[in-house]
Amino acid sequence: MKTSVFRKEHFNAAHRLHNPHWSPQKNEQIFGKCNNPNFHGHNYDLIVQVIGEIDPETGYVMDMKVLSDIIKENILDRFDHKNLNMEVSEFQNLNPTAENIALVIWQILKEKINTLINPNLAIKVKLYETERNFVEVPA
Amino acid sequence: MKTSVFRKEHFNAAHRLHNPHWSPQKNEQIFGKCNNPNFHGHNYDLIVQVIGEIDPETGYVMDMKVLSDIIKENILDRFDHKNLNMEVSEFQNLNPTAENIALVIWQILKEKINTLINPNLAIKVKLYETERNFVEVPA
Amino acid sequence: MKTSVFRKEHFNAAHRLHNPHWSPQKNEQIFGKCNNPNFHGHNYDLIVQVIGEIDPETGYVMDMKVLSDIIKENILDRFDHKNLNMEVSEFQNLNPTAENIALVIWQILKEKINTLINPNLAIKVKLYETERNFVEVPA
Amino acid sequence: MKTSVFRKEHFNAAHRLHNPHWSPQKNEQIFGKCNNPNFHGHNYDLIVQVIGEIDPETGYVMDMKVLSDIIKENILDRFDHKNLNMEVSEFQNLNPTAENIALVIWQILKEKINTLINPNLAIKVKLYETERNFVEVPA
Amino acid sequence: MKTSVFRKEHFNAAHRLHNPHWSPQKNEQIFGKCNNPNFHGHNYDLIVQVIGEIDPETGYVMDMKVLSDIIKENILDRFDHKNLNMEVSEFQNLNPTAENIALVIWQILKEKINTLINPNLAIKVKLYETERNFVEVPA
Amino acid sequence: MKTSVFRKEHFNAAHRLHNPHWSPQKNEQIFGKCNNPNFHGHNYDLIVQVIGEIDPETGYVMDMKVLSDIIKENILDRFDHKNLNMEVSEFQNLNPTAENIALVIWQILKEKINTLINPNLAIKVKLYETERNFVEVPA
Repeated sequence: MKTSVFRKEHFNAAHRLHNPHWSPQKNEQIFGKCNNPNFHGHNYDLIVQVIGEIDPETGYVMDMKVLSDIIKENILDRFDHKNLNMEVSEFQNLNPTAENIALVIWQILKEKINTLINPNLAIKVKLYETERNFVEVPA
Repeated sequence: MKTSVFRKEHFNAAHRLHNPHWSPQKNEQIFGKCNNPNFHGHNYDLIVQVIGEIDPETGYVMDMKVLSDIIKENILDRFDHKNLNMEVSEFQNLNPTAENIALVIWQILKEKINTLINPNLAIKVKLYETERNFVEVPA
Repeated sequence: MKTSVFRKEHFNAAHRLHNPHWSPQKNEQIFGKCNNPNFHGHNYDLIVQVIGEIDPETGYVMDMKVLSDIIKENILDRFDHKNLNMEVSEFQNLNPTAENIALVIWQILKEKINTLINPNLAIKVKLYETERNFVEVPA
Repeated sequence: MKTSVFRKEHFNAAHRLHNPHWSPQKNEQIFGKCNNPNFHGHNYDLIVQVIGEIDPETGYVMDMKVLSDIIKENILDRFDHKNLNMEVSEFQNLNPTAENIALVIWQILKEKINTLINPNLAIKVKLYETERNFVEVPA
Repeated sequence: MKTSVFRKEHFNAAHRLHNPHWSPQKNEQIFGKCNNPNFHGHNYDLIVQVIGEIDPETGYVMDMKVLSDIIKENILDRFDHKNLNMEVSEFQNLNPTAENIALVIWQILKEKINTLINPNLAIKVKLYETERNFVEVPA
Repeated sequence: MKTSVFRKEHFNAAHRLHNPHWSPQKNEQIFGKCNNPNFHGHNYDLIVQVIGEIDPETGYVMDMKVLSDIIKENILDRFDHKNLNMEVSEFQNLNPTAENIALVIWQILKEKINTLINPNLAIKVKLYETERNFVEVPA
């Protein structure tokens, strides 16, 4: 029977929502305060879900210490205390909305976990931008 | 790939659980303290989930400010600081259990979001009556 | 050295803010939605703090099971799933604001704990009406 | 339409992760601090989800008081303030990882709820070992 | 008897820790990742405590709606979705550590509340930079 | 003006409440389930408060990274994933109630912080044994 394991991590970052193909007026109209050119920031809470079978030898779907290390090396060390627009390469040409940040994290972790640990593990990512606004990929 | 966005809101209301086709004894037996004819109340935490594709122009599944405004106008302004049994029309003939409140909210928001925003967005509603009792529709 | 122990409990109740010596207009102006004559309600989170010396025999300031039982018998059994204005005698002539509810709880528990357990224990009461509005007596 | 109801409970227990077919070195290597032969412990938060149709008579998928009583009798009374390895029979020959504890709880509750309440209700169990490590069965 | 009322609000902002009288090396050594010249950010949770007597007419120490409006006008409208170093005048020459942000908020709110509402009300400010790092002024 | 800074940490441990000078019957009567000779356990949340003046050079009362390191080295490395009764020397002859655990932590940290950092800093320790039972020293 398929079982999910979840690991919660967090990082703090600055960002700005902006579409370079739009006028300043349209950016202001769509993104409001989030378009501030001087940036604002968040404490992002990240929950990574890994779905697979329980290994009868260990009783684990996946070692949570290993999962935590993979998240740290591939996400936290690159995103934490950073300006996402200026310092994280994936957002050079991608608007760092919560949806897109979660999608990027999902793509990175899925590739790492399926390559390093087990190609049969499925991954989901839930990202809290605030306590009241959050996203999940895939739905 | 389908992505979910979530918005958390809250409202405070009084209610009473009661089936008018039952005797007072049966109401008391089934609903216990929740049948108190003088009402009791809750802080309801409401999480609305909207499922769709990320718009490449905005990076949004749906603008969370718009979602928050739709919830405010259609749910909070009608439910907050109200007596659900006496003042919210949907519960004139429907017992305001957490299940039924969530179902009513889901029906209202689904119709509004599919009409006003996008007919392809799917909706789910999670309602916390207390920190320990909560419901989700659809399952 | 003085040490504090804390016990968190909760109850759900309906209430209405109202000053019978004021006009309906003034009640509406001061209390707004909280003046709704049909009542509204809350999940109240209650934290009772007891301050004293650690007993060297037990390692306890006070047995938390006993504290929980005193709160249950004297507060929860009288307040939970009740209409505070109509069913709790202390609010017959006292407006059930968070401040006054906390004050009433403090008076009841202080008398019980000092009589039943130890006259030297000091008491403080913190009451959350919502996650964002809360009070403490004494300050 | 299928609706979910959720009940949150908690218990405190000691445990140790250990595979008796492995050497002490391999146990230490795989389970690290969790292999401590003197045990460590957790506050486990347990969320039981029951999925079914809303009963039009009650407005309930299932009476949450009855669900709470079933969890108390079958899980909390057997697991709370216990040493899982030494005192809970299901873990005599099963490593008490979060995954396996959740699986055992799911098996017990599914059998009880389908027998006592309704054979058509589906069950899911989410178990928080810490705020940052948790599992769900089935996925 | 003195009673406290508390109002919780929040804002999201970017900041950078930096002492312009120090070398880049010393700034890096003392402030580490928080010295990033491209800024990072936080969801700040703000709890404002007001201490005074309960008014027998209203049952309030202070109307929480008025308190919320004062916080919104004087703090949130100026700090939320802003770059604290670049856009909030108080931090032109003051390092925006959690301690200093809380101190600035305390000075602003104390002056407003004592002038507009009541000179006898005492104020305390608690500011959460993350769930794990927070400050309070005065101690 | 005195300012407080707070750092939240956590550890997981097994323990048993027991007074060796009492009969098994009295231990069972006073400590109930907590007297289980096979131990039970908790996720302990620890909040350390440091009270002092804000340093005008750094804007800090105390560097939270240094505080976190002191807590890790002196408390977490000795208490986390341990059996408090069997493996932590301070509880060889001291009952590991929440009150006594908090007192021991306070004594250790006060000595370290006053020696290593600043003799004028005052310390308080808040320890959550569960979400509903917690203690603070000094009161």
